[in-house]
Amino acid sequence: MNRCLISQMEVQGFIERCLAAVGAKPHHARSLAEVLVEGDCRGHYSHGLNRMDMYVKDIQTGICAVDGEPVVEKESAATALVDGKNLLGPVVGNFCMNLAIAKAKEVGIGWVVAHGSNHFGIAGYYAMQALKENMIRTLGTNPLSIAAPAKDGDSFVLDTATSTVALGKVELNDRRGDPIPDGWGCDPHGKITTDPKRVLTGGGLVPIGGSEATGGYKGYGLGMMVEVFCGILAGAQYSKYVRTWKVTDRVANLGQCFVAVNPDNFAPGFNERMSDLLSIQRDQNPADPGSPVLAAGDPERMNMKKCEEMGGIPYHINVIKYMNEYAQKIGVNQLLPCDKMISV
Amino acid sequence: MNRCLISQMEVQGFIERCLAAVGAKPHHARSLAEVLVEGDCRGHYSHGLNRMDMYVKDIQTGICAVDGEPVVEKESAATALVDGKNLLGPVVGNFCMNLAIAKAKEVGIGWVVAHGSNHFGIAGYYAMQALKENMIRTLGTNPLSIAAPAKDGDSFVLDTATSTVALGKVELNDRRGDPIPDGWGCDPHGKITTDPKRVLTGGGLVPIGGSEATGGYKGYGLGMMVEVFCGILAGAQYSKYVRTWKVTDRVANLGQCFVAVNPDNFAPGFNERMSDLLSIQRDQNPADPGSPVLAAGDPERMNMKKCEEMGGIPYHINVIKYMNEYAQKIGVNQLLPCDKMISV
Repeated sequence: MNRCLISQMEVQGFIERCLAAVGAKPHHARSLAEVLVEGDCRGHYSHGLNRMDMYVKDIQTGICAVDGEPVVEKESAATALVDGKNLLGPVVGNFCMNLAIAKAKEVGIGWVVAHGSNHFGIAGYYAMQALKENMIRTLGTNPLSIAAPAKDGDSFVLDTATSTVALGKVELNDRRGDPIPDGWGCDPHGKITTDPKRVLTGGGLVPIGGSEATGGYKGYGLGMMVEVFCGILAGAQYSKYVRTWKVTDRVANLGQCFVAVNPDNFAPGFNERMSDLLSIQRDQNPADPGSPVLAAGDPERMNMKKCEEMGGIPYHINVIKYMNEYAQKIGVNQLLPCDKMISV
Repeated sequence: MNRCLISQMEVQGFIERCLAAVGAKPHHARSLAEVLVEGDCRGHYSHGLNRMDMYVKDIQTGICAVDGEPVVEKESAATALVDGKNLLGPVVGNFCMNLAIAKAKEVGIGWVVAHGSNHFGIAGYYAMQALKENMIRTLGTNPLSIAAPAKDGDSFVLDTATSTVALGKVELNDRRGDPIPDGWGCDPHGKITTDPKRVLTGGGLVPIGGSEATGGYKGYGLGMMVEVFCGILAGAQYSKYVRTWKVTDRVANLGQCFVAVNPDNFAPGFNERMSDLLSIQRDQNPADPGSPVLAAGDPERMNMKKCEEMGGIPYHINVIKYMNEYAQKIGVNQLLPCDKMISV
């Protein structure tokens, strides 16, 4: 497939230009751009540049705020409740994450919960901020992410939704005319189905584990756990009150939970044990000899290495065309001319 | 099936007698008995009276310690590292849980990690202690449990292993000659299989989600997350170093993690929102009209209600016979004469 290679710096600058053009503060635009670029570098294109216009629209329509900064409403040595003031999700996320890390430095744990937040890109981005400070992070919206530092820059980074797959995977099978595996989705009556059409027309995704027989109630419980720590604890929207995806008729008021854990407060040698644990997993005999056993975060690390070697992020040409047309509409300079086509 | 009905108080006393007979301190024996009785009341017979002899044996052989109490090794306002001193798991569990709750009362969060611990019965028992203090608890060994209080004594109590099912379920299908559902276990080469024999002879259980196609890597990641918070953070045994189940050739040195979260440190109205969330779930149209939608903890609540109405816990007569023979061997009074047979 032909892809157009764009440097990270150019993508970063482009997103900042677009956001600034509609009135975002420069440092807010930078925060958002960083999360989106990180999403693309890690290979999660669904959470990268591809979503930029959604954030621009949220600012244009006033459904997201541009003025002010997040505010701490309630605080102890280890906790904080933050009002995100309806700012862009990454602005709220970075604020909460920094606060959690600062508290964990003092008392070992920082548990920060935000309401009044918005969509914030890949959850793993925030969890990984703690790695730089050699801390464990865990966090959830409905996804759940945890990052734990090992030796020499190695790490464990889990970033996962509590559904079996993303809706996009069901759509892809539908377009190809393929059935979906048992355990991805259900029909409008809640029965597990292998027909992607039934999932897409009134049915839905199911929690990790699929049906009751294959442990779907465990995934359901884990999804509820995330809801308790985010929407419920924060006093934000939760469950059926959460705004439908991309229906921006009202502010989102999302709840998010950020936890930093300082290994220094527990047994010495944490990083060494993490490295050993990762080695034990990676050194296991794979079920399929062609696919070595990986740890959470490994596929993304490989993708980032590939981007680094190529000197940029490979995008489908249609994404770049769409973004450049969009840029023109809001009076912003286009992404650097796309003459670096590569085949991946 | 004919069952023998024994009062909770009698089971509690019987377990205490047996433990005391081999040298456990009375309050340690009581702690263990309470967890096992709670397991049975909640319908989890695999974690109740049925396991009593395992704990007795651990004390008889000296593989578990009877002297001393758990010790705090390192502490901050919000955290503690505890040496369980190789005491019975419930002794360590209760110590850590109480410490976590005390810290959460002060600073909103208590995050307590133990090494030198032993098997501690159902994880949910500890998570539920926090409910009495109107706190959220989350905890893991390799299971993961979280309890969150709603209004009027209602609650959400998730207590789940990160494998799809327990090994006992595979054994049951094998004995019946039935295949197992796709996604429960794998053969010795790591391939998902529906043949229980292959799982039991060199194969193994798989994480929630089953194969890669059905999201098994998510369950794998969640299992690793629990490992990070328990074995790794505590400096206890982890991964392949954990002693094989029931092979008591050396002390267990298990790691466990206990977290208490005080909703008062976050947005007001937590209990009301929890009740609303539970109602939303329970009021949904069920996929099967005969099976209403439940929340985590509901099946156990129903089982406890049934025990209360019957005035005791129904045990299979063979379990009672086995226990009474065992009691005789260690010179302990038997369980009350089993003349209360009921049909369940």
